[in-house]
Amino acid sequence: MKIRVGFGYDVHKLVPGRDLWLGGIKIEHTEGLLGHSDADVLIHAICDALLGAANMRDIGFHFPDTAGEYENIDSKILLRKTMALLREAGYELGNIDATVAAERPKLNPHIPEMKRVLASVLEVDEDDISIKATTTEKLGFTGRQEGMAAYATVLIQQ
Amino acid sequence: MKIRVGFGYDVHKLVPGRDLWLGGIKIEHTEGLLGHSDADVLIHAICDALLGAANMRDIGFHFPDTAGEYENIDSKILLRKTMALLREAGYELGNIDATVAAERPKLNPHIPEMKRVLASVLEVDEDDISIKATTTEKLGFTGRQEGMAAYATVLIQQ
Amino acid sequence: MKIRVGFGYDVHKLVPGRDLWLGGIKIEHTEGLLGHSDADVLIHAICDALLGAANMRDIGFHFPDTAGEYENIDSKILLRKTMALLREAGYELGNIDATVAAERPKLNPHIPEMKRVLASVLEVDEDDISIKATTTEKLGFTGRQEGMAAYATVLIQQ
Ligand SMILES: [Zn+2]
Ligand SMILES: [Zn+2]
Ligand SMILES: [Zn+2]
Repeated sequence: MKIRVGFGYDVHKLVPGRDLWLGGIKIEHTEGLLGHSDADVLIHAICDALLGAANMRDIGFHFPDTAGEYENIDSKILLRKTMALLREAGYELGNIDATVAAERPKLNPHIPEMKRVLASVLEVDEDDISIKATTTEKLGFTGRQEGMAAYATVLIQQ
Repeated sequence: MKIRVGFGYDVHKLVPGRDLWLGGIKIEHTEGLLGHSDADVLIHAICDALLGAANMRDIGFHFPDTAGEYENIDSKILLRKTMALLREAGYELGNIDATVAAERPKLNPHIPEMKRVLASVLEVDEDDISIKATTTEKLGFTGRQEGMAAYATVLIQQ
Repeated sequence: MKIRVGFGYDVHKLVPGRDLWLGGIKIEHTEGLLGHSDADVLIHAICDALLGAANMRDIGFHFPDTAGEYENIDSKILLRKTMALLREAGYELGNIDATVAAERPKLNPHIPEMKRVLASVLEVDEDDISIKATTTEKLGFTGRQEGMAAYATVLIQQ
């Protein structure tokens, strides 16, 4: 059994007039993330970590943002397709640990629901998905609320 | 034996009039990190990586910065408590690899002592704790010396 | 067999009048990365992840940028030396997953060649090296094209 590690990093801009989707759920906020899809930065980082671990390129390679079919798409669909690609290649999930960097809104109350939703999309045990949130103490583009960033690390095994 | 990976990211602001605590030791510098605890950004990233690997939320969940008991607390106490939580849940440390991003002061001379101190707090072999320091070439908030950031990755096993 | 994880993070400034080296290959661009060596930020992050996993300090410790012998050196030489240090210590590579954050130029067309080159330098299977590229949506120093950043995670085993 070979174990492999992956790491994903994603960034989206915050703009007025968009819904905020994070970890597969819609969160009340004055701004939302901008992107071709629903711009769920946390799911995108997880997709990239999974694809990187499996050496299967990245989310932009499989779901190009020039393709009309992915416009405003629910990122949970991309995550489900990503996990299906890994399973077809013979991989199973070990665990995921993901972190969102965002100054506001407070994300901690939403984390248990994000975990439930993502576990269901991935068809894995909730115990294998950790989600954390941090501010960057008003520093950098996340601290200035210009955008949000997400980091994800995963283990997979064949 | 199940192996799990975790990743932690933490940021604190640099301000005059505070001691600089990093990796469990006090380092001479013109500024220190601001926070409710001693603001040891490196230890906090390690705690978050450990808790994330074990799917046990994060440092703010276990040691809220609204709690008077954690005001100015030595982060080594938080690290010891974090490792105790993992051991109670049946986990042992595989290894830690942590990186501090800071423009100044020069941290490399202090790394062997940080490793000794953290190994002793965690009650693990020094060989299982790697600490690295990097500048960001004057770019970004770390490069402008507005703050420091730390990244940590860990493996744990049950 | 003990498995260990490592994480590397590196940043270099973009300046006119330098060649752009990334992932071991030269890429056409209006600017290049500034550094003592060829400043290949992606290779440097990989070296730091490998050294961190093995608890063997970092790239600056082994190849100091005050040493004349490393001036403008091809970072592939540093990567080959790094892997030799790990093999001497009894480690073999599990897998690498690395990500470059750069607003421009488009890096995706170059990724297959980077993977071929790095696999050959490391003398490992190409399937064990994943490289990804992302923009940061014009945010932060990478988004403003002031520099590039790279993140790498690795597994190694003894
Ligand atoms: Zn995205
Ligand atoms: Zn902190
Ligand atoms: Zn470098």
